[in-house]
Amino acid sequence: MHDEQALVLRQDEAGVATLTLNRPQARNALSRDMLRALRAAFAGLAADETVRAVILAGAGPAFCAGHDLKEMRAKGYSEDYAESLFADCAALMLDIVRLPKPVIAQVQGIATAAGCQLVATCDLAVAAEDARFATPGVNIGLFCSTPMVALSRNLGTKQAMQLLLTGEAIDAPTALGFGLINEVVAPAELAARTAALARQVASKSPLTLAIGKEAFYRQLPLSIADAYDYTREVMVRNLAALDAQEGIDAFLEKRQPIWCGR
Amino acid sequence: MHDEQALVLRQDEAGVATLTLNRPQARNALSRDMLRALRAAFAGLAADETVRAVILAGAGPAFCAGHDLKEMRAKGYSEDYAESLFADCAALMLDIVRLPKPVIAQVQGIATAAGCQLVATCDLAVAAEDARFATPGVNIGLFCSTPMVALSRNLGTKQAMQLLLTGEAIDAPTALGFGLINEVVAPAELAARTAALARQVASKSPLTLAIGKEAFYRQLPLSIADAYDYTREVMVRNLAALDAQEGIDAFLEKRQPIWCGR
Amino acid sequence: MHDEQALVLRQDEAGVATLTLNRPQARNALSRDMLRALRAAFAGLAADETVRAVILAGAGPAFCAGHDLKEMRAKGYSEDYAESLFADCAALMLDIVRLPKPVIAQVQGIATAAGCQLVATCDLAVAAEDARFATPGVNIGLFCSTPMVALSRNLGTKQAMQLLLTGEAIDAPTALGFGLINEVVAPAELAARTAALARQVASKSPLTLAIGKEAFYRQLPLSIADAYDYTREVMVRNLAALDAQEGIDAFLEKRQPIWCGR
Repeated sequence: MHDEQALVLRQDEAGVATLTLNRPQARNALSRDMLRALRAAFAGLAADETVRAVILAGAGPAFCAGHDLKEMRAKGYSEDYAESLFADCAALMLDIVRLPKPVIAQVQGIATAAGCQLVATCDLAVAAEDARFATPGVNIGLFCSTPMVALSRNLGTKQAMQLLLTGEAIDAPTALGFGLINEVVAPAELAARTAALARQVASKSPLTLAIGKEAFYRQLPLSIADAYDYTREVMVRNLAALDAQEGIDAFLEKRQPIWCGR
Repeated sequence: MHDEQALVLRQDEAGVATLTLNRPQARNALSRDMLRALRAAFAGLAADETVRAVILAGAGPAFCAGHDLKEMRAKGYSEDYAESLFADCAALMLDIVRLPKPVIAQVQGIATAAGCQLVATCDLAVAAEDARFATPGVNIGLFCSTPMVALSRNLGTKQAMQLLLTGEAIDAPTALGFGLINEVVAPAELAARTAALARQVASKSPLTLAIGKEAFYRQLPLSIADAYDYTREVMVRNLAALDAQEGIDAFLEKRQPIWCGR
Repeated sequence: MHDEQALVLRQDEAGVATLTLNRPQARNALSRDMLRALRAAFAGLAADETVRAVILAGAGPAFCAGHDLKEMRAKGYSEDYAESLFADCAALMLDIVRLPKPVIAQVQGIATAAGCQLVATCDLAVAAEDARFATPGVNIGLFCSTPMVALSRNLGTKQAMQLLLTGEAIDAPTALGFGLINEVVAPAELAARTAALARQVASKSPLTLAIGKEAFYRQLPLSIADAYDYTREVMVRNLAALDAQEGIDAFLEKRQPIWCGR
């Protein structure tokens, strides 16, 4: 679990698993191996009933600088490589969306291109005051077309276009105003604040979190009427769960609920 | 109209109907009977040509605390009850969306779970400075999966997830920044300000309001091209109405228009 | 190019084309001829490889007051006229969305109804502090049902409804907070700031801008999974382009890239 050479570190504590991108010398760039290590780590989390919330963090001064341009060049920009790289990258983002546990980004330094996409893809995000966010692919001739998927589902259209077309970075308070992140804290408090938020979320019923997170992303693209047709069935199913009945009983009895996860 | 025992009170003045949730002792919780009384009230408004705008308010210190947990428990969490309850609740929300008249939420105190959903569902919302908004279902094991439909169509994704996953309340200025409401006023001015906004909207052509509100929600989920194919037909139909021609004539003649509603 | 009588002026400088609505005496109202002149101008820009970014501006104190109500009345509100007018207007908006070059609105004074729609439709927008935005169709019986398409894809639902239902104007700082524009500047700096932004965007690879802009609007209405299926193919195609490989090479070699547009 603590192999310092691993591309992705995992540390568990009280139901919260922290995944740390561990290529600080490369600003945690998403090489193909890094993408695969992340996918494997998320697969492990999905199957692990002891994990109720996840933090995604980066080792060193940067959160994540996006794809590994040196690797792209070394591979001669081959189509085979590109296809597998972007397939893995998109699959990783869907792994995060589909993981039946909340994922919180913990962001310091830069979060650029696919690194910014990771922040946008996580369910929640806490950033240090010194964090900066950009989708600068336009500057190198490679538009951030996959990052835009996550970006444009977090930011307004004009704000997403500003980042995508200019390639310029925004600071953490601007990112907060744009809706990309949930909270800005002093750098020294970043880890503690993110951990507290993760513990708070991890204290909920894991079944309820799984039901709710899945429902959220499934209903988003639907018309209002279709979204209600779907979610009212979700509510009926959720109320039939032992955890909902325990939760309501506990609330009415003014005591703490005891979740069984069913 | 002024039966103090009724679950929903209705008061009409100058084209504005105010519906008031009237279970202050239960923080206006949405029991099954309350949902049905609201649906009946909205059906009455839909058919009433004298009503041009609607205010949805709550009696007592709270706007609405959401579903009636005591009733849920008393019903033994039965599936039949749950199905009819959530069907009524979703139908009520669609009643508001489909009502051919603008609906304005007037919010004081707490607006939580389905109460927060009501605010998000109304076309406009004015809140007192002391109002607080939350979707705390996650705390009782019953994720706010129907409220999320309205919430995620008002707030950014990260902000909606924050409310849904943490269950924590936001205050009125935060709700304003998140886009959940239109205005924050001093508690003493809440009713007067909401009434003024309702009168302003009620001064428009009722036909025009009906055309516009329907078009708004129908075009929202469409692609841009499909949305234009639909709305340009709406414009042609709207310009053929007497009220549009009267409105333009009056504007060019620098006089007040006289609406005929056709 | 500098015919002062033309409805739309065009001026090119260093890859940036500025289109100027040129009916200042009518606050640049969008008569049928103006719509057609704009469509012709955008068709010219689409086919012109020397143009890499576009500014849309208005001559005189107002950006654009929307449709030409005097013309509508003079045409007797005929259905034939209305059909062709709103078809042209919707087609113009789609021309802007589909133009494979970024379009930046430069806004002073009022931008109302279809004028506000133009701002919302452009990819980016810079406004002077004195700019004001409104969709006041509701005041004249003709709901802004086509402007709402662009407005509701820039603003939150409650904020869009506020503009549409009340018809009231918002000032530039409010428009910035609502997400309708990207920047507010002093009136004296408006042209210079917009030009600087356009030059910045025009310095990117035109192929990359074209790929990215098209991808942005195509992926917006899709589900997340469908959006990734589409955009990862876009990324593969983009990385196969000479400009991407040149851009990455230049970045790694710490030099400026030289775009060939392929």
